[in-house]
Amino acid sequence: MKLKLFVDRMSQPSRALLIFCKANGIDFEEVKIDLAKKEHLSPDYKAINPMKQVPAIEVDGEFRLFESHAILRFLATAFPGIAEHWYPADLFKRAQIDSILDWHHSNLRRGSVGLILNTTFAPFFGLPLNPEAAAEAEKILSFSLAKIETFWLNNGQFLLGNSEPSIADLSLVCEIMQLEVLDEKLHKQILDPHEKVRIWVEDTRKAVNPHFDEIHTTLFQTKEILKKMRSNTGSGETKTN
Amino acid sequence: MKLKLFVDRMSQPSRALLIFCKANGIDFEEVKIDLAKKEHLSPDYKAINPMKQVPAIEVDGEFRLFESHAILRFLATAFPGIAEHWYPADLFKRAQIDSILDWHHSNLRRGSVGLILNTTFAPFFGLPLNPEAAAEAEKILSFSLAKIETFWLNNGQFLLGNSEPSIADLSLVCEIMQLEVLDEKLHKQILDPHEKVRIWVEDTRKAVNPHFDEIHTTLFQTKEILKKMRSNTGSGETKTN
Ligand SMILES: N[C@@H](CCC(=O)N[C@@H](CS)C(=O)NCC(=O)O)C(=O)O
Ligand SMILES: N[C@@H](CCC(=O)N[C@@H](CS)C(=O)NCC(=O)O)C(=O)O
Repeated sequence: MKLKLFVDRMSQPSRALLIFCKANGIDFEEVKIDLAKKEHLSPDYKAINPMKQVPAIEVDGEFRLFESHAILRFLATAFPGIAEHWYPADLFKRAQIDSILDWHHSNLRRGSVGLILNTTFAPFFGLPLNPEAAAEAEKILSFSLAKIETFWLNNGQFLLGNSEPSIADLSLVCEIMQLEVLDEKLHKQILDPHEKVRIWVEDTRKAVNPHFDEIHTTLFQTKEILKKMRSNTGSGETKTN
Repeated sequence: MKLKLFVDRMSQPSRALLIFCKANGIDFEEVKIDLAKKEHLSPDYKAINPMKQVPAIEVDGEFRLFESHAILRFLATAFPGIAEHWYPADLFKRAQIDSILDWHHSNLRRGSVGLILNTTFAPFFGLPLNPEAAAEAEKILSFSLAKIETFWLNNGQFLLGNSEPSIADLSLVCEIMQLEVLDEKLHKQILDPHEKVRIWVEDTRKAVNPHFDEIHTTLFQTKEILKKMRSNTGSGETKTN
């Protein structure tokens, strides 16, 4: 199957797909849809994904799919030779992974996207920073990290007590990595209470390196730019200038 | 397999599971977790679902699962004799259904829950009505209904142009049914522009009746109670008294 990934490496679900393909030796063409340049809003891209978001895929020039979790499930089952631990055929194990993937949207993802937007990225979209929405999002995020720690990471290296990562580990860890763009003090405040989460992020990184680090390079470059902007404005917040 | 469903019929994802089981002749025990009585917050129920939400299931007294979409996928694949159209084995068809199910959380569901809470149910939880949050949620909801109509319902009776419903039809339609509790004028304003959506809701209802109507009885009783409360206060909004 000829696979195209429509992605932006600044997008956490895009990174999860890129890392999954690289770690599993799936051949693909990376088509960059630059969110900063609003390329996701172009008519050409709307024909690929009517929801005008990344990531999306195209298979053999005709089958198109969006939603990163649907894509990960599809890649793990439709491509040959993918190791069983990513998305087990056993229906009970698979259901537990689906449960985490589904939970993610209204919990970890909602918290992290809301916090990052309202403390850091809003000015880049011409929006005001919104401390009230940020505080609300921080609550959801911290609650979600606590649930991951106490429920899914309480007896093993990876989620559900597994000794190897699943697509749920990859998706959630890529989401947590996005928090690197936050002001350092805020980042510490959020992650410090969750030691198991920090160890798990590191274990997931190691399990799929060197691909993890390669695909996260853009994120760390952005982190450095934001850090400089913050020290120039002398404030903990990111300001547009 | 011995199946227990932990549900409240006022919960839209709970209703989707109940209807799925009844329409497919799956035997189950319905364990009511009364949200209004805060039974979902009890220590006993936390042992069933650590996220303290409904729905959840228990299989053979030991396997526990939450998140309605994970549960629907599991029931459709792990129980014998479920008709193929609910969740096809074909990986391409399955992926398209997964895509809708995943999209649901941050779009249709987010809009509908936000709107219902902030116009109608907030006072019952001791919260103020929040017109600003309601307006934001209404935008997400209307955008979501438009996407369903123009993208997924543009060439067939059910989502994806199918001639029989999938678990995605069932989940999304049960969510849309929850809007029945809204003030009638607001309900009309939201649904009227989407004729294809209204027809599809009706077609889905018919496809799984009489179970659909039976499981929605509680919702319609609540709708009548709210209507009376509104006409007593003489206002379009629901007030606690
Ligand atoms: N649930 C979707 C989320 C997709 C999403 O939110 N993508 C973001 C980037 S991470 C995007 O394209 N944002 C641009 C926009 O919404 O305008 C998935 O997992 O694929
Ligand atoms: N994504 C979940 C949503 C579960 C959910 O939000 N359940 C609601 C009822 S519809 C609930 O239990 N609310 C009580 C609470 O959150 O405290 C699913 O599809 O199962």
